[in-house]
Amino acid sequence: MTVYVLNGPNLNLLGAREPEIYGRATLEDIKNALEAHAARAGTVIEFRQSNHEGVLVDWVQEAGAKAKGLIINPGAYTHTSIALHDALKAVSTPKIELHLSNVHAREAFRRSSMVSPAVTAVICGLGAAGYLTALDALLRLIDKKPFP
Amino acid sequence: MTVYVLNGPNLNLLGAREPEIYGRATLEDIKNALEAHAARAGTVIEFRQSNHEGVLVDWVQEAGAKAKGLIINPGAYTHTSIALHDALKAVSTPKIELHLSNVHAREAFRRSSMVSPAVTAVICGLGAAGYLTALDALLRLIDKKPFP
Amino acid sequence: MTVYVLNGPNLNLLGAREPEIYGRATLEDIKNALEAHAARAGTVIEFRQSNHEGVLVDWVQEAGAKAKGLIINPGAYTHTSIALHDALKAVSTPKIELHLSNVHAREAFRRSSMVSPAVTAVICGLGAAGYLTALDALLRLIDKKPFP
Amino acid sequence: MTVYVLNGPNLNLLGAREPEIYGRATLEDIKNALEAHAARAGTVIEFRQSNHEGVLVDWVQEAGAKAKGLIINPGAYTHTSIALHDALKAVSTPKIELHLSNVHAREAFRRSSMVSPAVTAVICGLGAAGYLTALDALLRLIDKKPFP
Amino acid sequence: MTVYVLNGPNLNLLGAREPEIYGRATLEDIKNALEAHAARAGTVIEFRQSNHEGVLVDWVQEAGAKAKGLIINPGAYTHTSIALHDALKAVSTPKIELHLSNVHAREAFRRSSMVSPAVTAVICGLGAAGYLTALDALLRLIDKKPFP
Amino acid sequence: MTVYVLNGPNLNLLGAREPEIYGRATLEDIKNALEAHAARAGTVIEFRQSNHEGVLVDWVQEAGAKAKGLIINPGAYTHTSIALHDALKAVSTPKIELHLSNVHAREAFRRSSMVSPAVTAVICGLGAAGYLTALDALLRLIDKKPFP
Amino acid sequence: MTVYVLNGPNLNLLGAREPEIYGRATLEDIKNALEAHAARAGTVIEFRQSNHEGVLVDWVQEAGAKAKGLIINPGAYTHTSIALHDALKAVSTPKIELHLSNVHAREAFRRSSMVSPAVTAVICGLGAAGYLTALDALLRLIDKKPFP
Amino acid sequence: MTVYVLNGPNLNLLGAREPEIYGRATLEDIKNALEAHAARAGTVIEFRQSNHEGVLVDWVQEAGAKAKGLIINPGAYTHTSIALHDALKAVSTPKIELHLSNVHAREAFRRSSMVSPAVTAVICGLGAAGYLTALDALLRLIDKKPFP
Amino acid sequence: MTVYVLNGPNLNLLGAREPEIYGRATLEDIKNALEAHAARAGTVIEFRQSNHEGVLVDWVQEAGAKAKGLIINPGAYTHTSIALHDALKAVSTPKIELHLSNVHAREAFRRSSMVSPAVTAVICGLGAAGYLTALDALLRLIDKKPFP
Amino acid sequence: MTVYVLNGPNLNLLGAREPEIYGRATLEDIKNALEAHAARAGTVIEFRQSNHEGVLVDWVQEAGAKAKGLIINPGAYTHTSIALHDALKAVSTPKIELHLSNVHAREAFRRSSMVSPAVTAVICGLGAAGYLTALDALLRLIDKKPFP
Amino acid sequence: MTVYVLNGPNLNLLGAREPEIYGRATLEDIKNALEAHAARAGTVIEFRQSNHEGVLVDWVQEAGAKAKGLIINPGAYTHTSIALHDALKAVSTPKIELHLSNVHAREAFRRSSMVSPAVTAVICGLGAAGYLTALDALLRLIDKKPFP
Amino acid sequence: MTVYVLNGPNLNLLGAREPEIYGRATLEDIKNALEAHAARAGTVIEFRQSNHEGVLVDWVQEAGAKAKGLIINPGAYTHTSIALHDALKAVSTPKIELHLSNVHAREAFRRSSMVSPAVTAVICGLGAAGYLTALDALLRLIDKKPFP
Repeated sequence: MTVYVLNGPNLNLLGAREPEIYGRATLEDIKNALEAHAARAGTVIEFRQSNHEGVLVDWVQEAGAKAKGLIINPGAYTHTSIALHDALKAVSTPKIELHLSNVHAREAFRRSSMVSPAVTAVICGLGAAGYLTALDALLRLIDKKPFP
Repeated sequence: MTVYVLNGPNLNLLGAREPEIYGRATLEDIKNALEAHAARAGTVIEFRQSNHEGVLVDWVQEAGAKAKGLIINPGAYTHTSIALHDALKAVSTPKIELHLSNVHAREAFRRSSMVSPAVTAVICGLGAAGYLTALDALLRLIDKKPFP
Repeated sequence: MTVYVLNGPNLNLLGAREPEIYGRATLEDIKNALEAHAARAGTVIEFRQSNHEGVLVDWVQEAGAKAKGLIINPGAYTHTSIALHDALKAVSTPKIELHLSNVHAREAFRRSSMVSPAVTAVICGLGAAGYLTALDALLRLIDKKPFP
Repeated sequence: MTVYVLNGPNLNLLGAREPEIYGRATLEDIKNALEAHAARAGTVIEFRQSNHEGVLVDWVQEAGAKAKGLIINPGAYTHTSIALHDALKAVSTPKIELHLSNVHAREAFRRSSMVSPAVTAVICGLGAAGYLTALDALLRLIDKKPFP
Repeated sequence: MTVYVLNGPNLNLLGAREPEIYGRATLEDIKNALEAHAARAGTVIEFRQSNHEGVLVDWVQEAGAKAKGLIINPGAYTHTSIALHDALKAVSTPKIELHLSNVHAREAFRRSSMVSPAVTAVICGLGAAGYLTALDALLRLIDKKPFP
Repeated sequence: MTVYVLNGPNLNLLGAREPEIYGRATLEDIKNALEAHAARAGTVIEFRQSNHEGVLVDWVQEAGAKAKGLIINPGAYTHTSIALHDALKAVSTPKIELHLSNVHAREAFRRSSMVSPAVTAVICGLGAAGYLTALDALLRLIDKKPFP
Repeated sequence: MTVYVLNGPNLNLLGAREPEIYGRATLEDIKNALEAHAARAGTVIEFRQSNHEGVLVDWVQEAGAKAKGLIINPGAYTHTSIALHDALKAVSTPKIELHLSNVHAREAFRRSSMVSPAVTAVICGLGAAGYLTALDALLRLIDKKPFP
Repeated sequence: MTVYVLNGPNLNLLGAREPEIYGRATLEDIKNALEAHAARAGTVIEFRQSNHEGVLVDWVQEAGAKAKGLIINPGAYTHTSIALHDALKAVSTPKIELHLSNVHAREAFRRSSMVSPAVTAVICGLGAAGYLTALDALLRLIDKKPFP
Repeated sequence: MTVYVLNGPNLNLLGAREPEIYGRATLEDIKNALEAHAARAGTVIEFRQSNHEGVLVDWVQEAGAKAKGLIINPGAYTHTSIALHDALKAVSTPKIELHLSNVHAREAFRRSSMVSPAVTAVICGLGAAGYLTALDALLRLIDKKPFP
Repeated sequence: MTVYVLNGPNLNLLGAREPEIYGRATLEDIKNALEAHAARAGTVIEFRQSNHEGVLVDWVQEAGAKAKGLIINPGAYTHTSIALHDALKAVSTPKIELHLSNVHAREAFRRSSMVSPAVTAVICGLGAAGYLTALDALLRLIDKKPFP
Repeated sequence: MTVYVLNGPNLNLLGAREPEIYGRATLEDIKNALEAHAARAGTVIEFRQSNHEGVLVDWVQEAGAKAKGLIINPGAYTHTSIALHDALKAVSTPKIELHLSNVHAREAFRRSSMVSPAVTAVICGLGAAGYLTALDALLRLIDKKPFP
Repeated sequence: MTVYVLNGPNLNLLGAREPEIYGRATLEDIKNALEAHAARAGTVIEFRQSNHEGVLVDWVQEAGAKAKGLIINPGAYTHTSIALHDALKAVSTPKIELHLSNVHAREAFRRSSMVSPAVTAVICGLGAAGYLTALDALLRLIDKKPFP
């Protein structure tokens, strides 16, 4: 089973860029931790990053066709991209929007998301560990486990 | 170790009220599942619900004094309560805002939160299972586990 | 058959507070008139007032469980209470929002109602007599009388 | 004693147009029921409908000169007509604004009324029966009956 | 030489409607005074009133074809009528917008005019005498008298 | 088969009014061209113009009852008429909103349309020829031709 | 009898500055024409110009104490000066706000006036001749001549 | 003579919560200092705190009935509570709104007050000493001392 | 003669994505139908799709240099892309903006277009057939055929 | 020790201008009372008034250099003057903004202050006596007296 | 050749006021550096500062009459002064708006400029050195040097 | 020493596109002039253009790693790109935002910049010569030359 984990603009700078906000883990660290975590659950991670809105749209479409679920940290495109909104709308599997920082405790323009209405769930503010949390939650959604 | 889990107005109706949005689990179901889950992690849950903004403020203050962390689903007070904002600001332990539904896919007035800027993290859209996810995430924050 | 009639903040001051706007009848006068009027229609009135938003939410929930219909004059909570909105949304019986004064002929902040989208009907501007009008209308809704 | 009942644009389509919102009673049904109801109270109804804002203004002026009171369902002109506002302002008898549907539970543009600040009272959401309710309330206002 | 003087909705009520705002002169008084005033300047007045936006548009078009200039008191249509804006735009003679009261000292909705950008000049607040002032000013514009 | 083509305020001035925006064809020219074009498709055109919002509402209702489809150029009423919106909503045949000019390249107030949400399709910016384009498109909608 | 005529910022540039908007008459031309016109009516004009908001406030106060009426062309301070608003509010004689150009046919920021709610009347769009019109109107207001 | 001093949500945390904004004095310190200060002026202080909007409304009503004046620090309810606005409106004695910090130098949402239009005076930014200042000012208002 | 037909993000999903809104024709179907239609008019279609805003800007520039006209369905970039606006502004041939659905009958954010002010004409709501309509209209614009 | 007390536009009219709002004390009365009050505290008052924003800025700068503290009643410049904001920002001594009336109970435009974020404290609604209150409070701030 | 360099309110405090934003150079330092720099280019600098909006308007007018170009740092008047806008509009020589700090990285109210639409160019964020940069750029504009 | 000069969408059309706004110099002309100018200062220019937001983000990141400073003319992405904002925030060297035209004298949507808060300085309105000015200013920033 494959899960796509897509990362938007400037997330390739993680670890170096404003570490007091984003933490010191690099995207490579996150990828490795996530792959190890996923392996334990028998899941394969397709982990990617791009600064290009169009590439992210391509990948969301690809995930819609190939994956059991997707996690997307849309970075700065969160707040303006109707293209991502539309691409995500067309994905029928579970999909989680993720942010490292608590976007609601920052600049006003980071509080509105074009992406949120098109996903299943939203998680923010857990730092790098949020990727692991999001994966756990996504797998539960994919499994459609009855509650509790 | 104690963790407070506070639930706001109308959450006592869970299971009966708009189940297509909120699911069929009752608040009692959630409490039981969460206590079982917490017990496995050696944690005690103080699980409460109130329709009164002032009571929720009292409890957040109490949690700030007695607990290692708190999860709050502020229900309708999410969108207007500066009193909860201020009470949460005064809490120095990890604190997670939780919503059952994806509030961003509903009415416009559910998209703005007065609470979010005052918490550590926000999770929404995972249904009743979100309580378990939030607890796992909160415990990780309390432990200040290095990543990964 | 029981009908709940719930009154919000400061309505206990009726008769004394700004009588040029709210009239000279006290809430006790209204209660008595309404009970007499209801008795003639074989209906019992559960008539209450509170300054507490949370108490009003509790009572709306109670009415949803016990009554055939409800009339609510939410007073100042009309304009801001999403908690009342949600509680009323969960009530499946007929429910009427009532105001003594014509709220549209007063300050701008009295013209928007969070409650109105969650009720069956809205009546304002008829003064104390509006309670009788609302009861007549509510009974007709409860009876689902064909028109005319 | 004469009471004017004025109906705005598209209300001549009642019964056929969006019956899930407006009900199945035709405007003719309402007129007949209302005249029968009024006759019992010794009142004559002048019942009219027009799609023309100017005609409605003419009629409001006429009602101001000839009638003891008026009920107006301004339809779509509710939300934009300052001309109706001004005409109603110049009427010194009791006057009630009426809507069949609960306008607050529909599109946002139906929630603001230019007419409401110029009338005595507003009633909405009671369907065709609202005409009978409005007439009862209007007669009480005309009689200036002391309360209770 | 003919000048059109067009009056919008509810101006037929002048003298009776809110005399503390609009004064005690009737529209007939104004017509007579204006015709006498115009006669002294060798001008014929075509003086009309209608409550219908469409009729006013018809008349503005007619004035554009037949008159040397026009004065319009658009009443309540001032604030919303793009149809009058467009009709006036198509008139190439001098045209003056007139209001009896100082619209800027009243409700906020009376402060914006859709008509003003389409006329030559605007006069308000001079009461009934404003018609005479407007006529004097219009004749000067028609004559294209050099200044001073 | 009859198709209604309804034209709003000031369109009777076409050819003379601001020809750099609206072109030099008169409404009569358009009517003739359209009738000839329709005749070739075996369609009869009911072509009308009015400056009165109420008359346009009357005609939309009439078209809903008698025609297979309608084209409406609502002129200035486009931007404010909820009455036209409601009338069009009640029409179940195909209906196209048409503008001669590209309204989006002009004043800001011409960019919002109350009419568009109530029609099947919108065409603007094609000048007089837009009437022919709209008719072709309307006939295709009426025929429910499969694509391609 | 003295009348103050006060001119705001940049009006000393009249005749040279954007003559297609403001005309070719200089402020000196206007002063001379106005004094001649006033002399015929037995009135003395106190004609002044300043680029300083504070000086204009001083002069309005002075006019309130010494003059029978005042005309003010506040120029750019029209749109922002609450100080002028307050000074004019304290003047009990007739007072007219005047603009050379039709401010409503220009930039959006010229359409709102802080001054208008504090004056008796407003005249704009008549060019230099507007000063003569304003004087005539002011004298009529001072004389409190009955109408007609 | 009794004066009520009412304190809103989270003010029980004073001294501990964000001392760089609110200072290090506890609410107990303030109560003691204020009672000592009041005793010197022959006044009794009824000093209370609650996190509940409804309780504060109850107390304002009680103060209206029993006290010669009241001071209220509404905390977070300042910005949203129409219920407090209405309760204060109904109090005819002098009443002062008080804030410890300068609310205008903080987050934007702290700059608007629903309470201010309903009180006699507003004082903010003086820290704990503001209670003493407010009491002095209130006593002067109660005494209706002529000025100076 | 060549005409460019450019399609924006997610239009490659046509036929599969929300067919109740966008219809069941695929983009390939549209391309084929359009090429056949164009061939009959002696026109060659350059038909492309991209999810990348930058690629669409590149292609618009290319069309400006090589084609006689262009049709663009900008998809989600319609609402935000100033880059497309600027690129289209620089194209001097006829250019038509096209949408499959009636964007005005959907979410509010789909009602504003950054692209419309920079094109010749806009067509929406005709489904896949809109491409044929747009081509016919474009060819007429290219030919500058006199009307009728 | 010197304290500056600066008064903005139109405050020289105090006692005469709208006494129902501003009271009957003149600015001279206030000056005398304040100087007497200050003398008892061993303080010298530099008391000034100007209608000129620039003069007030000059004086605030002068106070920053020479005084131990300042009180400013900025009058109408309160709501718009960023220049005063900046000048006050540069003053490091205690500084209090003062208004005679409760600005929050008046026109909407008097509710926003550009000055408040740049001062230590704000007092309004205490009438002429507010000057004495402000001086007492200022002296306490200057003395940095510990509380209580 | 003379160039005017005009400085607005509070710039006389440079070097002392918020040096972390505005730097440590005084206005005198800037004047000296700029005069030396200008002398090398054969230009005379007329360097002035005022806290008075009216004085700045006077000087802009003077510069329009006497100078070859002007640089203006309007300080706080940048954001509100339509008088400066109008005065600058009337200047036909090159004119540059200058700010020491990057106004876009500060409070929201510093991001809008009434002055910018009336100047040739805008430079901000270069500190004191920006004056030299602005002079170099201004001289190039005055010389109308072909590029490159 | 290398300086990056990055150009956004449609700047490759310079010289041809709207030359009355952007001038007649091509981007190649600018590149050549800038390289010559830089060579004299011992600086190497890395001069690029792209229509792709993602490519610009890539290049800003590259500049952050390799260059001593950067100049960016973000074209249409100025107004919407949070991705560029974030990328620039992560660059610690001096960085200047540049526009050829005075964006403040054009359409409203060109007046807001997402980029400006993230750069050191902003220059606009100097045409092609602005590149030379920006380079001079950037080198001064890089050198951290003391002033004057």
